[in-house]
Amino acid sequence: MVGLEEAKAIFFNHFAHKQSGCELIRSENAAGRVTAEPVFARFSSPTFHAAAMDGIAVRAEDTFSASDNTPLALDLSSGQAEFINTGQPLPEGKNAVIMIENVILDEDENKAIIRAPAFPWQHVRKVGEDIVATELLFPTHHFITPPDIGALLAAGISQVAVTKRPKVVIIPTGSELVQLDDFPMEVPAGKTIESNSAMLAAMAKEAGADAEITPIVPDQYDQIKEALKKALKAGADLIILNAGSSAGSADFTVKVIEEMGKVLVHGVTIMPGKPTILGEIEGTPVTGNPGYPVSALISFEQFLAPLLKKMQGMDHGDRPLLKAVSGRNLPSKAGIEEFRRMVAGRIGNDIVALPVKKGAGAITTMTRANAMLRIPAHSEGISAGQKIEIELLRPRSQIEKTILCIGSHDLSLDIIHDFLRKGSPPWYMAATHVGSLGGITAVRDGLCHLAGTHLLDPESGKYNVTYLERYLKGRKKARLYTLVYREQGFMVQPGNPKGIKGIEDLTRDDIAFVNRQAGSGTRVLLDHELKKAGISPSEIKGYDNEEFTHMAVAVSVLSGKADAGLGILAAARALGLHFIPVTEERYDLLIPEDALNLPSIQALLDIIKSKEFRKRVESLGGYSTRDAGKLVASI
Amino acid sequence: MVGLEEAKAIFFNHFAHKQSGCELIRSENAAGRVTAEPVFARFSSPTFHAAAMDGIAVRAEDTFSASDNTPLALDLSSGQAEFINTGQPLPEGKNAVIMIENVILDEDENKAIIRAPAFPWQHVRKVGEDIVATELLFPTHHFITPPDIGALLAAGISQVAVTKRPKVVIIPTGSELVQLDDFPMEVPAGKTIESNSAMLAAMAKEAGADAEITPIVPDQYDQIKEALKKALKAGADLIILNAGSSAGSADFTVKVIEEMGKVLVHGVTIMPGKPTILGEIEGTPVTGNPGYPVSALISFEQFLAPLLKKMQGMDHGDRPLLKAVSGRNLPSKAGIEEFRRMVAGRIGNDIVALPVKKGAGAITTMTRANAMLRIPAHSEGISAGQKIEIELLRPRSQIEKTILCIGSHDLSLDIIHDFLRKGSPPWYMAATHVGSLGGITAVRDGLCHLAGTHLLDPESGKYNVTYLERYLKGRKKARLYTLVYREQGFMVQPGNPKGIKGIEDLTRDDIAFVNRQAGSGTRVLLDHELKKAGISPSEIKGYDNEEFTHMAVAVSVLSGKADAGLGILAAARALGLHFIPVTEERYDLLIPEDALNLPSIQALLDIIKSKEFRKRVESLGGYSTRDAGKLVASI
Repeated sequence: MVGLEEAKAIFFNHFAHKQSGCELIRSENAAGRVTAEPVFARFSSPTFHAAAMDGIAVRAEDTFSASDNTPLALDLSSGQAEFINTGQPLPEGKNAVIMIENVILDEDENKAIIRAPAFPWQHVRKVGEDIVATELLFPTHHFITPPDIGALLAAGISQVAVTKRPKVVIIPTGSELVQLDDFPMEVPAGKTIESNSAMLAAMAKEAGADAEITPIVPDQYDQIKEALKKALKAGADLIILNAGSSAGSADFTVKVIEEMGKVLVHGVTIMPGKPTILGEIEGTPVTGNPGYPVSALISFEQFLAPLLKKMQGMDHGDRPLLKAVSGRNLPSKAGIEEFRRMVAGRIGNDIVALPVKKGAGAITTMTRANAMLRIPAHSEGISAGQKIEIELLRPRSQIEKTILCIGSHDLSLDIIHDFLRKGSPPWYMAATHVGSLGGITAVRDGLCHLAGTHLLDPESGKYNVTYLERYLKGRKKARLYTLVYREQGFMVQPGNPKGIKGIEDLTRDDIAFVNRQAGSGTRVLLDHELKKAGISPSEIKGYDNEEFTHMAVAVSVLSGKADAGLGILAAARALGLHFIPVTEERYDLLIPEDALNLPSIQALLDIIKSKEFRKRVESLGGYSTRDAGKLVASI
Repeated sequence: MVGLEEAKAIFFNHFAHKQSGCELIRSENAAGRVTAEPVFARFSSPTFHAAAMDGIAVRAEDTFSASDNTPLALDLSSGQAEFINTGQPLPEGKNAVIMIENVILDEDENKAIIRAPAFPWQHVRKVGEDIVATELLFPTHHFITPPDIGALLAAGISQVAVTKRPKVVIIPTGSELVQLDDFPMEVPAGKTIESNSAMLAAMAKEAGADAEITPIVPDQYDQIKEALKKALKAGADLIILNAGSSAGSADFTVKVIEEMGKVLVHGVTIMPGKPTILGEIEGTPVTGNPGYPVSALISFEQFLAPLLKKMQGMDHGDRPLLKAVSGRNLPSKAGIEEFRRMVAGRIGNDIVALPVKKGAGAITTMTRANAMLRIPAHSEGISAGQKIEIELLRPRSQIEKTILCIGSHDLSLDIIHDFLRKGSPPWYMAATHVGSLGGITAVRDGLCHLAGTHLLDPESGKYNVTYLERYLKGRKKARLYTLVYREQGFMVQPGNPKGIKGIEDLTRDDIAFVNRQAGSGTRVLLDHELKKAGISPSEIKGYDNEEFTHMAVAVSVLSGKADAGLGILAAARALGLHFIPVTEERYDLLIPEDALNLPSIQALLDIIKSKEFRKRVESLGGYSTRDAGKLVASI
């Protein structure tokens, strides 16, 4: 186990002289490739003295007497002056162009009258003004862009020597893996869809390489060895075994590399990505990438993308950095460099960054993030409010256009997001789900543009307003708009096998409940309904078993972990669960006043008032949009 | 003629609803494409409760009594505990995993001994922890990246609906144009290589489109019309006529669009790019792009790239911006927005940006620049030292690695550049050629890392040092290193038709001379040699005819504009000119002391001391590297 920088030094030094070779390609196809040698111009450009303006070509010496007081007539019929267009060659004997705007023609159009002299070579593009034959056009290892193609052709270079695309062979290993194409309708029990290889292949292509994915190889020493031999024979420049790199019984990768070649690094103190193996067989880099998708990705981007680019003479630029403020405490284990996926957006003068969940197994932490925070190995973490630097996963302009949404989740937020993205300009929404109360405090602390909240005040029977008065008033100005009314009820297994009828059944011995976390609107609602029914939480098995979203509760029920959970109809319907209605609740959007005039928030308010939006939300079932966009309170 | 923003508003609003359509493609090929509709997960991921660690699977309730003082033995043979690897499904009845590191096996390996209880669902990835079936995976118009492919496959989505690549048809027009492939050895007199279309096609591909280039169409009204009809019939989403958009007699573009459809914009107050035509025929955008390569490029990037991206639902991000300091006065015409190509690099705490030359006809202004400065229409220019914001044409990391080199040019600098780029890490060099004295003042003013200089002091016969004492001493600390000795002499036409033998021939009536600019080392050398020979500058025809580089002087001679010019052997040899040696001069590198410890400058000093570098320089002819890297003076 070594640190990231040490692992990189070992790996990159070992392959310091590994090159992908060189090939000649047509210049017009060269964008994105890298020159393999210096490129010298064959032709000059222009190849002749050319007019740089539309006008008349003259001999400058003929015009010296012209002035405002003594206009000069040049003879067109004899060729003393000749009409010329931009780009045309200067006629023999001419050395200047006078712009057509500064020329008056006599009635017969035989004479061109000018009122100022031309100086020699005025408005003339001289031979070689752009490119001089033999000059260095591009040095070795120049990354070719579209204008470079124009320069290559103009310099007479129809073919250019570029470095070859390295060939990457990706070998998916694991007896649990299946191809989606073989099981398009349902994944067999205990099996996992092989999704890493296509991701890694796309990353390899981004790094300029060609990628080939072999069939899945089961966790069998001999078969892995065979697959490696075949890849070597096929001339791979880099071989990735994915996964089989941790310490489990099925992890033959390290043994195979050790037998056939040399293991350079086994284990790197990064998270995700710790079980990375870096090795060499017959001069070819062979790596064992971890199996978790985010681990596989980070291992690739830290070690393999830079190596592939280096093989091609491509400069591996780091991701752009952006200064930001951490919205949360982010404790981190010392001794491990941590890669935290973040969502970031602009709140006033700051870019605020918030963490998404941590799991290396969750590829959606990458797809939902727009930035990466690296917490160095020597650090024990980041405090809320601390200044940090984030690596951008999406363009800066997109982060500037991102609405940060913290709080309770509702499916209608996804629909808002979809409408926002289709707008012109498009807006982005990044949401983290921490429950209604978490959303209100996030608004209070200036961490978001928007919070979804559905907190019932059991005393007054009112939604949200009581809580805003308690947590927000006098500390942060904000407005509360209604988004939807939605049905809350018990989600139970399809067919309701345990015959649950209502809240009183939750106390039954044979019923396991799954709850939402404290501070969530659904939890408050449950407590309210329990109180009304005179039931104590201690009577309910699983009351302390908490999940953070409606969908997670639904999954708990579907998988049999629990028999019942409180949630919305749409979540039950999405997973085919049985639903026992309990009540209709109001779900509001809380918007801090300083965000209200942002064009993104204005676009959002327009969307929730639109017919199209309402239609799509109501089609989910269990929703009413009768008050969508109604201002409930200004705090 | 309208302003840039107005032209954009007219053009983009006119095609606000133009879409490129939609197609289904395989998810693994979707990187770089854009979703055409919201994408919902079909499967949950994981689809089963899976071990998140290698270890043993247990029922948490069985472990509650374990502690440091009361270790607990779980029975492996009966299946009370079962070995499990990361990713494997949790056996029926088990609900937790204990890491293998926390398990001790008894001698028979029948019992697993633990010293701490497991809590329920510890180290278990629960069903749907990453993705819940039916949830929104991506909204409409989501730009698909490699991790997104992993998420698509994991969610059971083998095909994804994306927006189509728009089809761009590029019609090169101009009777002066020829294809390089037809004239690979020499361009016919008065003809120009058609190089814009390939550049525009590569830009279209960068904007996500497919591009097709038609054969060259001569400046004939009917033929242009015919080509347009054909492109419309072929289903083009965007048609570019390039060029034929200025006011010359051959400019039929605007007339054809007017006849067949509608001209929306004719002329935009930008430079380069002014003669842009934006129009529409049968609902298809048809544009007349200016013919100068930089004009064509800017017109494309301002109008066509954003439209192509919009058709695909792709967010058109602006180029990243960087704060910089202008190293020069940049006067600009009010009423015109100017796009100045710049080279930028870090000098101490500042990014310093310097202009490259202006010509819209010079594509090398784009290929050599790493940044673009936009001077707004209302501005009359930028002052040296003024804070500016530049748009990055190359990655920020590259600009940070760029050596700014101002001063006299020598071919050996190109060789240094080539070696720098092949290094690890690669370094970049951006050079502007302003003569030796300009280089010394640039060092003095903190505008560069390096200046090439070869200024002879006629009094002492010494090179450079006298000038440094005069211009630098007490104002900026710097060191002077010798780079090369090189032969200076008269470049004359091949075969020396006018029989020039030496400096005294320059006074002949039939000899036109081409000079270097005042302040250049070669000019100082000439003046010194003239004085020695007792010749007055007024006796030489063309003494005031100035060029800025050796190569430009050589081109003047080759093209017959001049009969003789003073320059280096390598330049004469490059263009096949006859060379009459005059003297050997020393060419030094001046490096400000505060740049000396930069790793880039250290790499450069290592290069000029290397055998490989010396060998390549000497192979140019007329060079001696006998003192390369020798410290001459510390000022």
